Amino acid sequence: MPDIEIGLGKSARRSYSLDEVALLPTRRTREPEKVDLTWEVDAYRLGAPVLAAASDAVSSPATAAALGAVGAAAVLHLGGLWVRHDDPASVLSRLAELGDDDELAAVGLLRDAYEAPVQPDLVEARIKEIRASGATCVVAVTPRHVEELTPHILRGEPDLLVIAAPLVSAEHVSDSNSEPLNLKTFIRRFELPVLVGGCASYQAALHLMRTGAAGVIVRSNVEIAGELGVGGGLATAVADARAARMRHLDETGVYCHVLAEGGIRTGGDIAKAVACGADAVVLDEVLAGASDAPGGGWWWDHGITHAALPVGGLWRELETGAEGAPTTEQLLVGPGAPNLLGALRKAMALCGYESVKELQTAELVVGA
Amino acid sequence: MPDIEIGLGKSARRSYSLDEVALLPTRRTREPEKVDLTWEVDAYRLGAPVLAAASDAVSSPATAAALGAVGAAAVLHLGGLWVRHDDPASVLSRLAELGDDDELAAVGLLRDAYEAPVQPDLVEARIKEIRASGATCVVAVTPRHVEELTPHILRGEPDLLVIAAPLVSAEHVSDSNSEPLNLKTFIRRFELPVLVGGCASYQAALHLMRTGAAGVIVRSNVEIAGELGVGGGLATAVADARAARMRHLDETGVYCHVLAEGGIRTGGDIAKAVACGADAVVLDEVLAGASDAPGGGWWWDHGITHAALPVGGLWRELETGAEGAPTTEQLLVGPGAPNLLGALRKAMALCGYESVKELQTAELVVGA
Amino acid sequence: MPDIEIGLGKSARRSYSLDEVALLPTRRTREPEKVDLTWEVDAYRLGAPVLAAASDAVSSPATAAALGAVGAAAVLHLGGLWVRHDDPASVLSRLAELGDDDELAAVGLLRDAYEAPVQPDLVEARIKEIRASGATCVVAVTPRHVEELTPHILRGEPDLLVIAAPLVSAEHVSDSNSEPLNLKTFIRRFELPVLVGGCASYQAALHLMRTGAAGVIVRSNVEIAGELGVGGGLATAVADARAARMRHLDETGVYCHVLAEGGIRTGGDIAKAVACGADAVVLDEVLAGASDAPGGGWWWDHGITHAALPVGGLWRELETGAEGAPTTEQLLVGPGAPNLLGALRKAMALCGYESVKELQTAELVVGA
Amino acid sequence: MPDIEIGLGKSARRSYSLDEVALLPTRRTREPEKVDLTWEVDAYRLGAPVLAAASDAVSSPATAAALGAVGAAAVLHLGGLWVRHDDPASVLSRLAELGDDDELAAVGLLRDAYEAPVQPDLVEARIKEIRASGATCVVAVTPRHVEELTPHILRGEPDLLVIAAPLVSAEHVSDSNSEPLNLKTFIRRFELPVLVGGCASYQAALHLMRTGAAGVIVRSNVEIAGELGVGGGLATAVADARAARMRHLDETGVYCHVLAEGGIRTGGDIAKAVACGADAVVLDEVLAGASDAPGGGWWWDHGITHAALPVGGLWRELETGAEGAPTTEQLLVGPGAPNLLGALRKAMALCGYESVKELQTAELVVGA
Repeated sequence: MPDIEIGLGKSARRSYSLDEVALLPTRRTREPEKVDLTWEVDAYRLGAPVLAAASDAVSSPATAAALGAVGAAAVLHLGGLWVRHDDPASVLSRLAELGDDDELAAVGLLRDAYEAPVQPDLVEARIKEIRASGATCVVAVTPRHVEELTPHILRGEPDLLVIAAPLVSAEHVSDSNSEPLNLKTFIRRFELPVLVGGCASYQAALHLMRTGAAGVIVRSNVEIAGELGVGGGLATAVADARAARMRHLDETGVYCHVLAEGGIRTGGDIAKAVACGADAVVLDEVLAGASDAPGGGWWWDHGITHAALPVGGLWRELETGAEGAPTTEQLLVGPGAPNLLGALRKAMALCGYESVKELQTAELVVGA
Repeated sequence: MPDIEIGLGKSARRSYSLDEVALLPTRRTREPEKVDLTWEVDAYRLGAPVLAAASDAVSSPATAAALGAVGAAAVLHLGGLWVRHDDPASVLSRLAELGDDDELAAVGLLRDAYEAPVQPDLVEARIKEIRASGATCVVAVTPRHVEELTPHILRGEPDLLVIAAPLVSAEHVSDSNSEPLNLKTFIRRFELPVLVGGCASYQAALHLMRTGAAGVIVRSNVEIAGELGVGGGLATAVADARAARMRHLDETGVYCHVLAEGGIRTGGDIAKAVACGADAVVLDEVLAGASDAPGGGWWWDHGITHAALPVGGLWRELETGAEGAPTTEQLLVGPGAPNLLGALRKAMALCGYESVKELQTAELVVGA
Repeated sequence: MPDIEIGLGKSARRSYSLDEVALLPTRRTREPEKVDLTWEVDAYRLGAPVLAAASDAVSSPATAAALGAVGAAAVLHLGGLWVRHDDPASVLSRLAELGDDDELAAVGLLRDAYEAPVQPDLVEARIKEIRASGATCVVAVTPRHVEELTPHILRGEPDLLVIAAPLVSAEHVSDSNSEPLNLKTFIRRFELPVLVGGCASYQAALHLMRTGAAGVIVRSNVEIAGELGVGGGLATAVADARAARMRHLDETGVYCHVLAEGGIRTGGDIAKAVACGADAVVLDEVLAGASDAPGGGWWWDHGITHAALPVGGLWRELETGAEGAPTTEQLLVGPGAPNLLGALRKAMALCGYESVKELQTAELVVGA
Repeated sequence: MPDIEIGLGKSARRSYSLDEVALLPTRRTREPEKVDLTWEVDAYRLGAPVLAAASDAVSSPATAAALGAVGAAAVLHLGGLWVRHDDPASVLSRLAELGDDDELAAVGLLRDAYEAPVQPDLVEARIKEIRASGATCVVAVTPRHVEELTPHILRGEPDLLVIAAPLVSAEHVSDSNSEPLNLKTFIRRFELPVLVGGCASYQAALHLMRTGAAGVIVRSNVEIAGELGVGGGLATAVADARAARMRHLDETGVYCHVLAEGGIRTGGDIAKAVACGADAVVLDEVLAGASDAPGGGWWWDHGITHAALPVGGLWRELETGAEGAPTTEQLLVGPGAPNLLGALRKAMALCGYESVKELQTAELVVGA
């Protein structure tokens, strides 16, 4: 499989990003209105195969309601502002007012805000707030905090739990005093379906599937790749996870969902991720450009606030004071561009696919 | 054939754009004046293998006359401004006056203008207006409107009909009440030669050829590819359609023409499209830069005016108030650059080819 | 050999530009001072394997002297300003004064100046003027004018004649009244060694070699490639001509020189062209940046002045009024950058090659 | 191995830069704090596998101390300002004050400063100055000056000696009166461990290893590649040197270290260089952006001051008067970005590697 010779005796594999691939139409076309976008994971059925990223820049109780209204779901980060502050509005409004190039001030403001302690009561309260809106309630924790927050999470009764970090492994090696999270034990015991990730290779995806997770999140992050040199393109990572899903299904009879996350910006990107093998996608920075995004136009990875080693991206997705931006709902279903779900629907119709599962069989081409 | 491994068990094919290929000269050269550019399709003989796109930005009764004068032909869209307005001049002059960055105003103005209903009488009148100029008269309809407009079209007696959409398939799957167009039945019954497209793959081209079309239009659109993730490079799509043409010819004895459309800007692009297998090309945005282009310097895809899901491009090809731009005729035959047909002629002469059909045998190289 | 599939049944070959390749050092290094740059072609021996292009922008009687002083040679175009005007100084000084973006005025000024007829007496006079400077005297004519100018050229007694056009073929097909030049007859009869080109493929190079030429010029021109779609990268074209040279040598025992022309800008470019197989190079636009370049800072291809179909490039290589630019001599031998011959020498020394002929055996790598 | 056909009968090998590769995570993750970064070369043990380049822009007695404090080491150039001037502070402060675009003034100022003669006494004094700081003391000489400076170097008693030039070969061919340095004899006789380089190919690395060097420096320099056309990407050059190390180890039982130098800017770059086979890296331009860098924000290759043939780069890495730049120490270990060693540590932890030696076994992917 590694067929590129980097140097004498050192091989590598070519890795593809979504930008490098495109869908090849079949000889059929369909009506966009007849295309079925529903996504079923465990007992839950969503109207669209779309989650919002576990970043405070895009996922909040309010956007959870907005996304729920169109069949998608937000993923509220249970280490973020909404569980550290009774009302993060003052932080967020100061952030929104910062100028387009004020990255340093934005990082400083966020770093301070994230130093407030997590309030366990707020964990339960936020979950209930989202459930009250009628939306599918999805929340995220990091591997490090999952055990201490579990009782509070269970009291809130969310629909799905995401265990999230840039890279999560089923086998974390540590000889520190605090025993690391045993994902396999935790997930099998846990009373709710769990999505876990990111991961970026066949082996990592396969081992995460074997923990009993309902789904694994395949992640690609160009900022992290640039700073840490880790990770390949999303198209290849998703296709490899698809192969892991097939093997896992063969070994266990259990279908583990594959979610794709990292720089997905258009309905075409969603369609391409699905054609590579994804069952659903996680939208990140594109949602930060909505007029009602919690980040007030800013996008950030939570890792950017790490004092010793800030890793990830922070930038204005929507300029200060810009007018005419779409709401989160409009971003997904229009009217107007990008209408991400409409574009996905149209791509599927043009290529002749009736369901997300059918789209996974699409032929791909690689462009320049 | 799919020889690129995107991931484990998921393959793809490399697709090439025209920009990636170039003609390799033979060991002969010729006189440009002796090169033969004529194109014969069905009973019609054009002086050059060139149509203008079915966009109101470039094709109008006036440009049909101008293009006819140099052997080419415009394709008037029978769902466009000329059949919705007795006189679209006021719309177009307001459009021309908009500033270079006024895309939003341009879209709004066009959207309003396209809301006027199609006037069947104008269909017949516009066709006759073009025929009166002596030009080859080519008109376009979308698959959705072809049946209702047929009587009016036939009364006008155009030379060629184009059935056009971003992607047209011979087999459109629908369970809506309105029975979709059966291309095979329609084209065989229709009294005029029909060109149909776009399409972007071997299978789609082959099935369109089997409808009895005189020609199929292979389309590549980078805006649509970006937003919907659908479609590969034009060079590969045309070469695949050439293979479909050979199979169709072998099966039926009928030669179905292949036209290439999508971002062709230079005489070299035309030459390369032909070398990939095209019999003729459809020029789009480049013609919007003519001083007499109907769009007053703007280029747009009709899809851009779709309220729920605008897809395609809209931009100023010629800046507001720019002086010294060539006319449509000058764009094609000079004097001065780009002289598209002169450049095609010169490319053929330098490479030693005497006719468009000979140029289809040219050797290609792929550059960086 | 054509191993890339553009589409079903249509193949192409990958073509490389000089920018894509680099020299791999051997395990030896040498002293730059000990490197031998001499180039012998027919009875002539030049100190460096370098000609200036047959463009009035860089080759004049004055630059012929300057280039001769460092062992190189200019190629005076016998269809250019110096044979159309007794004193082109007034044209050139007006050109030099034009602003950086005044391309239109520059083209207009040059087009007018080239409309003056060629004065046969000046042909002889300019040749003698160059010879009087002691430099190797090289002059260029187009295939179309070579026969009418031959008597005048011979009276001037240049050292080498170049028959030059963007692409020259040994077999020009024409049925016009004026019989085209029969290169084979002409070159064999002609009393001076002849270089002929451009060409861009193995077959074209081989056939030009068979005319009895002392050398063939391999040309690559990105402007022409863009406008006409013709031609691949220079590295591949030169390597193919090298293969033709080997076959020609095997068939005839005659070593035909290969010259590389087209966008060579650095000593590294020269070294790479040689490593691909060139015996010498033709420098073009880079020389237009010399403070004493005849074009006063402008670079142009003569084709740009063609009224009906201007093809090629025209731009300011040196900004109006820029100070501190090197002279032609300094460009070639320093002091200061780019010191093209010094850099060639240093590249050869670092890679362990003693002569231009040895450098032709260098190993190449292809970068991103 | 050379598997790319440039032209008929002329082959080449694909060469990769670090930017083109990325690390593929394994199925394990680790704690960053548990990652071991130490590097042992001969009798010396450094806390991190990092040297600063032998450029006065980044290595000085002061930065030697700062780098030593975090386990790395500077490489003081014994042909640079610190051995030509008792106190280079006045030169460096004038340099620091130059505007961002004042490259010409910077080159002039440096060229003058390098014309002062090397003072042998300062050689000894600077070495002792660095040793007094407690840092590992590494000094560099060019092949040309190594023999004359040896007595002074030995009196200073540095820890490691680097013999450095853009390309160093074990077999330098010269017939000049002054016998060139015989590396094999010199290194075997010399009383300290020697690192030697740059080199850029398997053969050159192998021959340098056979001189008895403790390590070889693999270098890639895009400025030199551009001007001289020599050299490929660093990933391939390092991987080839790794193969030479394996052969040398097999032949002699001696492990010769491989260092990677040239444009390494992030912790990810360091991790990728190691994954290609490097035991350590040499940081260059990135360190010039430290607030306490000796060059006051400027980066330069020493070759840039060569009057006849300036080769290499000179630019402001840190803008004049910029505030908030990290110190050299902060660049390496934070807090804040880039925290090169922290990022290396994190990359290793995410990918599951415990030591630098283990990281050399990492799987690589090649991106677009």
